[in-house]
Amino acid sequence: MEGDFKLLYDFIAEPGNNELTVKEGETVTITNQNIGGGWIEAQNSRGEVGLVPEDYIEVRSTVTDVGNVATADLSIFDAYAPQSAPASNGNDPWSVWNADPSGGSNNNWASNPEGTQTGKTAADPWSAASQGHPQAYQGPGAEDDEWDDEWDDMKSTGGYAESESGESGAMQRGGAHATSMKISLNKFPGFSKSGPELYLLCKQLAKGKEKLPIYMGEVGPVWSYPESQLDCVVADPKKGSKMYGLKSYIEYQIVPSTTNRPVNHRYKHFDWLYERLLDKFGSAIPIPSLPDKQVTGRFEEEFIKMRMERLQGWMTRMCRHPIVSCSEVFQTFLTYKDEKDWKTGKRKAEKDETVGVMIFSTIEPEGPDLDPVEVEQKCEQFSRFTKSMDDGVKEILTVGHEHWKRCTGPLPKEYQRIGKAFQNLSSVFTSSGYQGESTLTDAMTAAGKTYEEIAQLVAEQPRKDLHFLMETNNEYKGLLGCFPDTIGVHKAAIDKVKEGDKLVATSKITPQDKVTMAKRVSIMSYALQAEMNHFHSNRIYDYNRVMQLYLEEQVKFYETIAEKLRQAHSQFTTM
Amino acid sequence: MEGDFKLLYDFIAEPGNNELTVKEGETVTITNQNIGGGWIEAQNSRGEVGLVPEDYIEVRSTVTDVGNVATADLSIFDAYAPQSAPASNGNDPWSVWNADPSGGSNNNWASNPEGTQTGKTAADPWSAASQGHPQAYQGPGAEDDEWDDEWDDMKSTGGYAESESGESGAMQRGGAHATSMKISLNKFPGFSKSGPELYLLCKQLAKGKEKLPIYMGEVGPVWSYPESQLDCVVADPKKGSKMYGLKSYIEYQIVPSTTNRPVNHRYKHFDWLYERLLDKFGSAIPIPSLPDKQVTGRFEEEFIKMRMERLQGWMTRMCRHPIVSCSEVFQTFLTYKDEKDWKTGKRKAEKDETVGVMIFSTIEPEGPDLDPVEVEQKCEQFSRFTKSMDDGVKEILTVGHEHWKRCTGPLPKEYQRIGKAFQNLSSVFTSSGYQGESTLTDAMTAAGKTYEEIAQLVAEQPRKDLHFLMETNNEYKGLLGCFPDTIGVHKAAIDKVKEGDKLVATSKITPQDKVTMAKRVSIMSYALQAEMNHFHSNRIYDYNRVMQLYLEEQVKFYETIAEKLRQAHSQFTTM
Repeated sequence: MEGDFKLLYDFIAEPGNNELTVKEGETVTITNQNIGGGWIEAQNSRGEVGLVPEDYIEVRSTVTDVGNVATADLSIFDAYAPQSAPASNGNDPWSVWNADPSGGSNNNWASNPEGTQTGKTAADPWSAASQGHPQAYQGPGAEDDEWDDEWDDMKSTGGYAESESGESGAMQRGGAHATSMKISLNKFPGFSKSGPELYLLCKQLAKGKEKLPIYMGEVGPVWSYPESQLDCVVADPKKGSKMYGLKSYIEYQIVPSTTNRPVNHRYKHFDWLYERLLDKFGSAIPIPSLPDKQVTGRFEEEFIKMRMERLQGWMTRMCRHPIVSCSEVFQTFLTYKDEKDWKTGKRKAEKDETVGVMIFSTIEPEGPDLDPVEVEQKCEQFSRFTKSMDDGVKEILTVGHEHWKRCTGPLPKEYQRIGKAFQNLSSVFTSSGYQGESTLTDAMTAAGKTYEEIAQLVAEQPRKDLHFLMETNNEYKGLLGCFPDTIGVHKAAIDKVKEGDKLVATSKITPQDKVTMAKRVSIMSYALQAEMNHFHSNRIYDYNRVMQLYLEEQVKFYETIAEKLRQAHSQFTTM
Repeated sequence: MEGDFKLLYDFIAEPGNNELTVKEGETVTITNQNIGGGWIEAQNSRGEVGLVPEDYIEVRSTVTDVGNVATADLSIFDAYAPQSAPASNGNDPWSVWNADPSGGSNNNWASNPEGTQTGKTAADPWSAASQGHPQAYQGPGAEDDEWDDEWDDMKSTGGYAESESGESGAMQRGGAHATSMKISLNKFPGFSKSGPELYLLCKQLAKGKEKLPIYMGEVGPVWSYPESQLDCVVADPKKGSKMYGLKSYIEYQIVPSTTNRPVNHRYKHFDWLYERLLDKFGSAIPIPSLPDKQVTGRFEEEFIKMRMERLQGWMTRMCRHPIVSCSEVFQTFLTYKDEKDWKTGKRKAEKDETVGVMIFSTIEPEGPDLDPVEVEQKCEQFSRFTKSMDDGVKEILTVGHEHWKRCTGPLPKEYQRIGKAFQNLSSVFTSSGYQGESTLTDAMTAAGKTYEEIAQLVAEQPRKDLHFLMETNNEYKGLLGCFPDTIGVHKAAIDKVKEGDKLVATSKITPQDKVTMAKRVSIMSYALQAEMNHFHSNRIYDYNRVMQLYLEEQVKFYETIAEKLRQAHSQFTTM
């Protein structure tokens, strides 16, 4: 059965797109792997041929009896920068590196220096099941031919019915960007097979005008921050349609604080931006995923509001990043003047050659070269910290999720029952026929209604406070999920430098190469430290803000209840 | 197998008391039914003979093939005033009468006019299972021979070990008073077989000096209230012992507001008082049960505190009743001067002949005779009301019980987990190595601790507010549980009057008897109305008070939390 591959997920073909419906566990023969755009052509056991997302097909790297076809096929799965295996395949992104760095066998870099990455972890993690499985970038990727890559917007034919019904698991797109990114990375032959060596051993660094200086601040290495912080508002979602209404989409208005001039973007444009940023900065800067396509909202308005809120959060985080916000691609996205300007900017960004680990070639730290031991220590420290914080954030999300459920489920029901019990007893009292107890019965009814109001307050409260605590931690969960990759590049570089003597001895590199590598890993360490310091300062700001907001709303909540009960109390007479 | 009776419950013999251990479902032959004191002598299948509480033996009223011995045996089960079947036998006391009085077959009075009563329902009803099964009054009832009727106090050998172990179900005494009451009722031959007829058809009413006038108040018939309301304080429980420390007991100090001079009483004296009051007033006035012997406290101190609190509640209710509080027996209990005085008073009370339905012979309403239709309507109204209120009270107890469980179980656990999650994240932050975040981490730790404090507050709150709401409703549940009996006597009298023509026609009564009956049922109605008005006025007072207390404490609770959160909030810096 050479050339047969197993399907990892169900995929339901979209009619008229030459796609092939396949089931999880089914085996197919690959008939054409050069389709591009994340697709391959496959044949099922019934002889039917059609396109299937390549991410849906199992990577059989341990299979030894495969022939040439199969071996060649494998190359499509490690098309870009070496990273950990896709989180969406059930791997914990944290598992590839741990607090004990000496455990070489646990380190993917040692055994599989050219692994794959998704570059994206699920962005809607309130429930553990929300990590969707990957789906290929649909459509051939012709950049101006927009009508057939409408997958990122709503279908005009049925809203979210497909994904809501739960039948079309294939519509969930947790790791979509991995494959779509390949398209751009594939433009750089040779890059696809590289680790940090590409930068560490590069003979001639790119002579671009781009320079990313790193200064020594009070806290250590810091990025160069712009004088005024960029900000933007994502607002005013508008429904548009094309193809005579066959396809509909939502366009958001983004107003940057610099120009105050709105630009419009659809979700797919955000997605394009995300991919460019990941491509360009991902090795040095964790680029958090965009909000998932399938967010929690059940109704169109709720869905749009939720997505907009999360796009706003994502944009705010990007705006706050000194390197990202000042990058040409980001500026283009925010300030293009017209359609032509946008298209020119897009083409330019896609042709950018300073991507992947080559971003380090633009970094210019002002300090002296760092001692390799210090470099490694720093790296381990960040590694431990981000892992611990990931645990801490997940704990808050878990506890918060349970609290949310209690506050919107059993707790208000109980207050409602207390309220009803008071009211029921009050109406029994009213039926007594005894004179002059209306003060009591009125007061008891009011008390009962107060508890019903409290039930309402309890049920509504999570949206007012817990929501932001959850969203912030959720955002941080996403951001922390990028660190294993970013730190992984760093660790791989350190390992390469450690191998230096051996490589020189076996004449794989020259002694000069070894010196260059040590210097360059020091530059990488400056970048990592600058990024960590940026992360810390943002973290302090964000948690300070969200805790204040949470506590503020909690105070209001308890005060409102106390006030309501005080009023209820005042209706009883003191005899 | 004539003369064989089935055991309803397990009974474990106390060593040295000639008792016989029997199991539920076991059959015994009755060998001597004239033991008295609620005991009978029985023989088990192994030929062993011993004393068994008569309440533990099944009443076989439907058995038709029993011989003389068996038939004679039945008489011991209906020894006093006709009432509903014992609640402790699993009967709902409310089931014997309902909103539709025409349903004769549902009315025990029609089919079994000489039923039995326990006169007591379980007084610790927070859990539905707390209705214990009955146990006989232990000991021969020799009033001065106190050492062998120590059952009501703690055994010096093991505190509550016996009842706590759950092995000694026989120690629970839900319906104990029914049998002990028989002793005094048996003093009046002929009474034991009587319903309200005893009063309705009595040729010559007792010529005592006791007069219970009923006045017409604004709300209708009312008892004569004393000028100042009696009150008393139950306090200062002291452990005493006798028989060289073999027996120990708790003595409570009761200080009446009238004399301000403390008297001491043990639980068994309260029990004696309860029986006297039930005996004397039970047909006209619901006499609530004493707190259960086995209350919820697990430790001696908690047990004593809880019992004292409930004895206080019971005494307060009795003090507030104009008829009960002014009665000689109650006054004797509260104001006896010395041991001799107390014993004289006891003997006198036990010889009182104005008991059972004869209490109505002392009642003197100032209004005109009531129309029989009105009498019945009032009765039905009270019947409906007390049934509805019983439902309402039980609903509050159920909801309150659940709320109690949530507040002392999952809810504080959740707040604790929230608190821990904040503190954990804070300690992760502390490990960052980043400078100047101690303000945040200190504030987050403080916020975390605040949520742990909130957990504590939540868990403790029920004792501060829900407790009193539950106790009051619990008390009312007990009180309402007496109404079926009280109203039952009334309904039986109404039915008797309705039968009047038939009874005259069959020469069972004279036409003059019929007139007398109608007049006397009018007197009974005045009494019932006065009692209902007393009940209503107390109810309004009690619920007004307990709702105020509850809401007051709830306000404090929410204000305390708000204040704690406000403090936690203030530790975060506004950047």
